[in-house]
Amino acid sequence: MTEQEINLTRGVPPMEVLPVEEMIIASEAAFNNDGLNLLQYTHAPGYVPLLNLLAERYGVCVDRVFTGNSSLEVLEFIIRILLKPGVRVFVESPSYDRANKLLLRSGADVVGIPLESDGMDLDAFEAELKKGAPTLLYVIPDFQNPMGTTTSEAKRRQIAKWAEEYDFYIAEDAPYRMLRYKGDDIQTFLSIVPERVFHMCSLSKLLAPGLRLGYAIAPAEQVKRLTAWAADTYIGPVGPSQGMVYEYYRMGLFDKNVEKLKKVYAPRLEALEVAARKYIPDAEFPKPEGGFFISLTLPEGNTMDLLLKRAPQVNLKITDGRGFFLNPADGNRFLRIPFCTLSTQEIDEAMRRISSILVK
Amino acid sequence: MTEQEINLTRGVPPMEVLPVEEMIIASEAAFNNDGLNLLQYTHAPGYVPLLNLLAERYGVCVDRVFTGNSSLEVLEFIIRILLKPGVRVFVESPSYDRANKLLLRSGADVVGIPLESDGMDLDAFEAELKKGAPTLLYVIPDFQNPMGTTTSEAKRRQIAKWAEEYDFYIAEDAPYRMLRYKGDDIQTFLSIVPERVFHMCSLSKLLAPGLRLGYAIAPAEQVKRLTAWAADTYIGPVGPSQGMVYEYYRMGLFDKNVEKLKKVYAPRLEALEVAARKYIPDAEFPKPEGGFFISLTLPEGNTMDLLLKRAPQVNLKITDGRGFFLNPADGNRFLRIPFCTLSTQEIDEAMRRISSILVK
Repeated sequence: MTEQEINLTRGVPPMEVLPVEEMIIASEAAFNNDGLNLLQYTHAPGYVPLLNLLAERYGVCVDRVFTGNSSLEVLEFIIRILLKPGVRVFVESPSYDRANKLLLRSGADVVGIPLESDGMDLDAFEAELKKGAPTLLYVIPDFQNPMGTTTSEAKRRQIAKWAEEYDFYIAEDAPYRMLRYKGDDIQTFLSIVPERVFHMCSLSKLLAPGLRLGYAIAPAEQVKRLTAWAADTYIGPVGPSQGMVYEYYRMGLFDKNVEKLKKVYAPRLEALEVAARKYIPDAEFPKPEGGFFISLTLPEGNTMDLLLKRAPQVNLKITDGRGFFLNPADGNRFLRIPFCTLSTQEIDEAMRRISSILVK
Repeated sequence: MTEQEINLTRGVPPMEVLPVEEMIIASEAAFNNDGLNLLQYTHAPGYVPLLNLLAERYGVCVDRVFTGNSSLEVLEFIIRILLKPGVRVFVESPSYDRANKLLLRSGADVVGIPLESDGMDLDAFEAELKKGAPTLLYVIPDFQNPMGTTTSEAKRRQIAKWAEEYDFYIAEDAPYRMLRYKGDDIQTFLSIVPERVFHMCSLSKLLAPGLRLGYAIAPAEQVKRLTAWAADTYIGPVGPSQGMVYEYYRMGLFDKNVEKLKKVYAPRLEALEVAARKYIPDAEFPKPEGGFFISLTLPEGNTMDLLLKRAPQVNLKITDGRGFFLNPADGNRFLRIPFCTLSTQEIDEAMRRISSILVK
């Protein structure tokens, strides 16, 4: 095999967008301006100047901001303060595999609500509500991982109404929201029903994953509970990276970086749509307006076992789509394509190779 | 009140020992040498060059090294992989309040074994063993927090024997071990019975707390379990600080820093012993050979309620000693003095003030 391997398993930023030089400058600024505080014991919920900056960006009081060492761990803390074994949790089906895993680890009864092109199927949602209200809904409303879909405003409003009526919280995971390549923003759950929402975001896709910096905007009394839990777990988050990120924002680099990323990623999304239509016209897929992923539902007759067997023969690494479903069989024809990591040429070639191994 | 307040509540390094300038150099080296990897997704159990370096320093295979965002959280992960509600855990009494809290949070049945000047009371230990073996023993053998005591080699050997006989693990928390100001090292539990030990250490007292970098040396199969648990919780630890610490070691700065710290802290320990004998001759206290703390057992007739009421009158902040005991009443005359944070003059003055508010 002479072809270069193409890896479709990694939902990570490409190396060329990681701003090493800028981080050196931000790091030096952080240590010069406030080094002693960044090296002394830190305190949950985070570095105060960064908390204030995020509060201002979101237009909320600072007592509503919690930061931690990754948004995944912020979700873990939300789980630990809210859930007990046996309580119900709703998630989209499919959903982010790592979130599903954490939710299941808590012993909660995790219920998948089928995802449509504009968000969860509300009939299925309501039917599950009637069986028993959840304590928490975990949802990725913008450019969902793994589907790429965005929840419509109408659906957000209905779900928000149910959150009040049935008394549940919404963990609104929004790491891709700022990576919109076309169309207009839709209101967040946070803006619709703030007293019911943990709005989570991460710098992994917007700046650099290695910083492991995530945050949540939540009701003040819930931030207090998260803070107590985090303090008991690790005292405070890692200091220097919080200082670096603060300086990075202050120097105006963050917004510039997001604009730069959009310019890099938008053509990749387009290339994927074109290539998918060209090589696999029978596959169904949503039309994302941003984010990192599109998932294809492959034509009937294909199965994951078959694809996973054949992919190495065309020098392709793929993710087992069944991992995104609570009921693995539901993902038997489900192929997630993380388009941001690949060049447009690689995307075209990857779709061609997939087409070559499909049952048609 | 014209006197300066003296704060006896903070077991933290004094600001003047935090190496800001050196961290700027280490940070720049880390980003220059391996910036892309430090900014890309990291992986549990940590940054590979740092894992290799620690493995070499401890003379173990790298598959026995786990790093995390603070040794407290490393303990939390140990708890999560080993304990279930209702299992027995032994701790020294008194012990580190935050460790007690995490252990209790797990739902374990936490049993305090009275601490003597050379380690736990082995008769009491054996009596508890006969009631039911623990799953885990949490112990701070060197310069214990809060007592300042060191477990003798004979006691370590007996406890290690019991660990094998009664099939329990030992979480050997050793953040102060390298801060020995006099006398000779005693063998670690790790060296006596490696297959039963999670040997934990932290850079908080040896370099800088804000790095939140802790690690454990443990049996390879336990490191595998910790790694899986950590990956599910946060994917990987924070990258840049792991890179900085690696470069800091590589530049030979770590061992120099420990030597520098010993020179700063040794006279403070001596000043505290002198002042305690001078002002409070009736108090009992161990004679630590290192670490951060001495705890005084005050003469009978004194109580925490009385001390906490009177301390502000002499501009002194003290820690409620009852917090270090599972049975709070056991700490009613227990006063922890963190001597590293204070100058020798402040230490003398603090002891004078305590003496002035005691019932004699």
